[in-house]
Amino acid sequence: MSVNYATPSPESLFPIDGIQLGSAEAAIRKPGRKDLTLITLEPGASVAGVFTQNRFCAAPVLVCQDHLNAGNSIRALVINTGNANAGTGESGRRAALTTCEAVAGLLGITPGQVLPFSTGVILEPLPVDRLTAALPCCVNDLKADNWHAAAHAIMTTDTLAKAASRRISIQGKEVTITGISKGAGMIRPNMATMLGFVATDAAIHKTLLDRLVREAADESFNCITVDGDTSTNDSFVVMASGKSEAVFADIDAEGYRDLRQAVIDVAVELAQAIVRDGEGATKFITLAVEGGKERDECKRVGYAIGQSPLVKTAFFASDPNLGRILAAIGYAGISGLDVDNVRVWLAACGEEILIAEKGGRADAYREEDGARLMKSPEITVRVDLGRGLAAGKIYSCDFSYDYVKINADYRS
Amino acid sequence: MSVNYATPSPESLFPIDGIQLGSAEAAIRKPGRKDLTLITLEPGASVAGVFTQNRFCAAPVLVCQDHLNAGNSIRALVINTGNANAGTGESGRRAALTTCEAVAGLLGITPGQVLPFSTGVILEPLPVDRLTAALPCCVNDLKADNWHAAAHAIMTTDTLAKAASRRISIQGKEVTITGISKGAGMIRPNMATMLGFVATDAAIHKTLLDRLVREAADESFNCITVDGDTSTNDSFVVMASGKSEAVFADIDAEGYRDLRQAVIDVAVELAQAIVRDGEGATKFITLAVEGGKERDECKRVGYAIGQSPLVKTAFFASDPNLGRILAAIGYAGISGLDVDNVRVWLAACGEEILIAEKGGRADAYREEDGARLMKSPEITVRVDLGRGLAAGKIYSCDFSYDYVKINADYRS
Repeated sequence: MSVNYATPSPESLFPIDGIQLGSAEAAIRKPGRKDLTLITLEPGASVAGVFTQNRFCAAPVLVCQDHLNAGNSIRALVINTGNANAGTGESGRRAALTTCEAVAGLLGITPGQVLPFSTGVILEPLPVDRLTAALPCCVNDLKADNWHAAAHAIMTTDTLAKAASRRISIQGKEVTITGISKGAGMIRPNMATMLGFVATDAAIHKTLLDRLVREAADESFNCITVDGDTSTNDSFVVMASGKSEAVFADIDAEGYRDLRQAVIDVAVELAQAIVRDGEGATKFITLAVEGGKERDECKRVGYAIGQSPLVKTAFFASDPNLGRILAAIGYAGISGLDVDNVRVWLAACGEEILIAEKGGRADAYREEDGARLMKSPEITVRVDLGRGLAAGKIYSCDFSYDYVKINADYRS
Repeated sequence: MSVNYATPSPESLFPIDGIQLGSAEAAIRKPGRKDLTLITLEPGASVAGVFTQNRFCAAPVLVCQDHLNAGNSIRALVINTGNANAGTGESGRRAALTTCEAVAGLLGITPGQVLPFSTGVILEPLPVDRLTAALPCCVNDLKADNWHAAAHAIMTTDTLAKAASRRISIQGKEVTITGISKGAGMIRPNMATMLGFVATDAAIHKTLLDRLVREAADESFNCITVDGDTSTNDSFVVMASGKSEAVFADIDAEGYRDLRQAVIDVAVELAQAIVRDGEGATKFITLAVEGGKERDECKRVGYAIGQSPLVKTAFFASDPNLGRILAAIGYAGISGLDVDNVRVWLAACGEEILIAEKGGRADAYREEDGARLMKSPEITVRVDLGRGLAAGKIYSCDFSYDYVKINADYRS
């Protein structure tokens, strides 16, 4: 079940010239589903990524960082689901490198030109033999219009494949952006999230792409939470094949602002799709915090509300137990916050009501109004901290019986 | 349902000379249960407290702090359940002061000698008229051996009343310590927790008592979590009636170390009782973190594990999904943590097994061993951070369907 989200049709996901994708069944965890995906890039593409800040980050994350930091010309990404290759120590690192070597052998490139990604259960050895055995099938399957299939092949507890696509005109040329993502639990990205891949045919200088990937992550994957657990494998990658004639050397390049916004739009759509498909989610909740001294404190307040199990269960129950929201604002760690200046609104279906001000419940607030809005599957909590001009948004979901069921059953 | 906890019998809770308790039905939220408690102290008693750091702290918390900071000789505590008087702004503050005035009138003391406490639903006006109308019944009920009844009268979603008592010999004199606490949800105290009251007949100088209450909170209520939500009303108070002949002027007083330990023992028992009765809890989990650079970072790692919804649902399912523990250690925000030096053990029923080391699963670990220990209702996760000599413990519980049920239904 997901909240107001459906996977886009295959036809609506534009191929990116210079990039091909292929998937196969490797039986990483269980047979009978595609769980291995290869993405290839023609020479001349730029690739940039941001990765989890979890100290127990997965072996493939370390290998990705090594290969990107070395300045290698990246030619392939390989993604397996079913096993995170995290908490696997030195043998996990060897397994990730073996994967890169196998891909390199098949494509006639060097292992350093391959970025490996894994997602699934932590603390179990990656079955690298089954993985490499299935790689030739991925190669055989390589096609430019395989984004829809790849979005399915990278799923774990996701109930729906996640993808987004845009086609815009910049510098008088057509530019296409297409991306996929996965993730439903262990979602509270810190710098990036559980596997997001966005590609464009624009030519973007590597330095600029490094900046763009961080900015896009900051507006999208770094603004979502399902359960507050930062994954060991979060990775977000932007690829620019350079096949379009639109070229961007720096932030002053003509039309870069439009390109940047389009990439962010795709990233936000992919990030929100993860929350809409959050484990057990029945509601999509936006925490829109404004009036802060800086964006960071707005996001901190948004996360405090969006991660509170008490707030999330109240949303699940459509119970306007709004004191729980005030409590979360109060413990968000905002030094010197004057609660008398804080105002809180609830919004849904185009209606917005003030629920709290001057340290307490708003005089005009009626509980039946709160209860009515709480029934909507799309709810915004707007908070004005009343101490500055900064703002930030966090996207979250509610907390249902099914979250417990999914996570008590997963793996068992 | 609670985990290995039963309310002590009335006879096992020793009265404290100089302190009386009385409860009554005020129908604060619903009729038919005792929801108002008065505790009186004879002249000469010392009282010290620590309170929530939540910026949206409740009106009674502000009044308590005012009355304690003014150096007033405290003669009474008044505690209502059913309504937190939090998020109630200026009218909430007036309601708390009105409560103090009513108590003062009945006892012939000043309002500034009264400490008010509230617990229950946030953001709803306190029905102060019903509260003050029931106060005379509390006065009629005042008795020294009413601790058991008071422990029941301060409950909200608690399924069991929580109390603890000790009698020790210090300076050749008998010293008694008795306490009560309440709380089951919105539990992640920051400086104190949702209503804990400990009394002793020892004479303890106010300055020393101020220090003792902080130290005891730091070892007990500040080491527990149920859902990570810091309440608006957390309060922990230690009262010393001075009726025993044992006198403590400073930390060098004879036997003070024993008294301190006994007070901490009572506070730890009361704090653990809150976790054992945590909303929906089926397991009591101790996070024992050692080898840290400082105690604070050990507690931070303990909280990260103890608050992770993924870890808590895995414990509920008796699923040794231990990678979730590593992920939580990894995102606890310990700067420079070398995961290759981290070791993690699982312990239960007198057995301890090493589960992770050198950044991955321990070679000797067998999943059937983990699964066996996970079935115990009392489990310890021991973590050695391998970078120092500090240690700290956090007490938590698992996350079950009933947590969602209780919090989706509460109030509705």
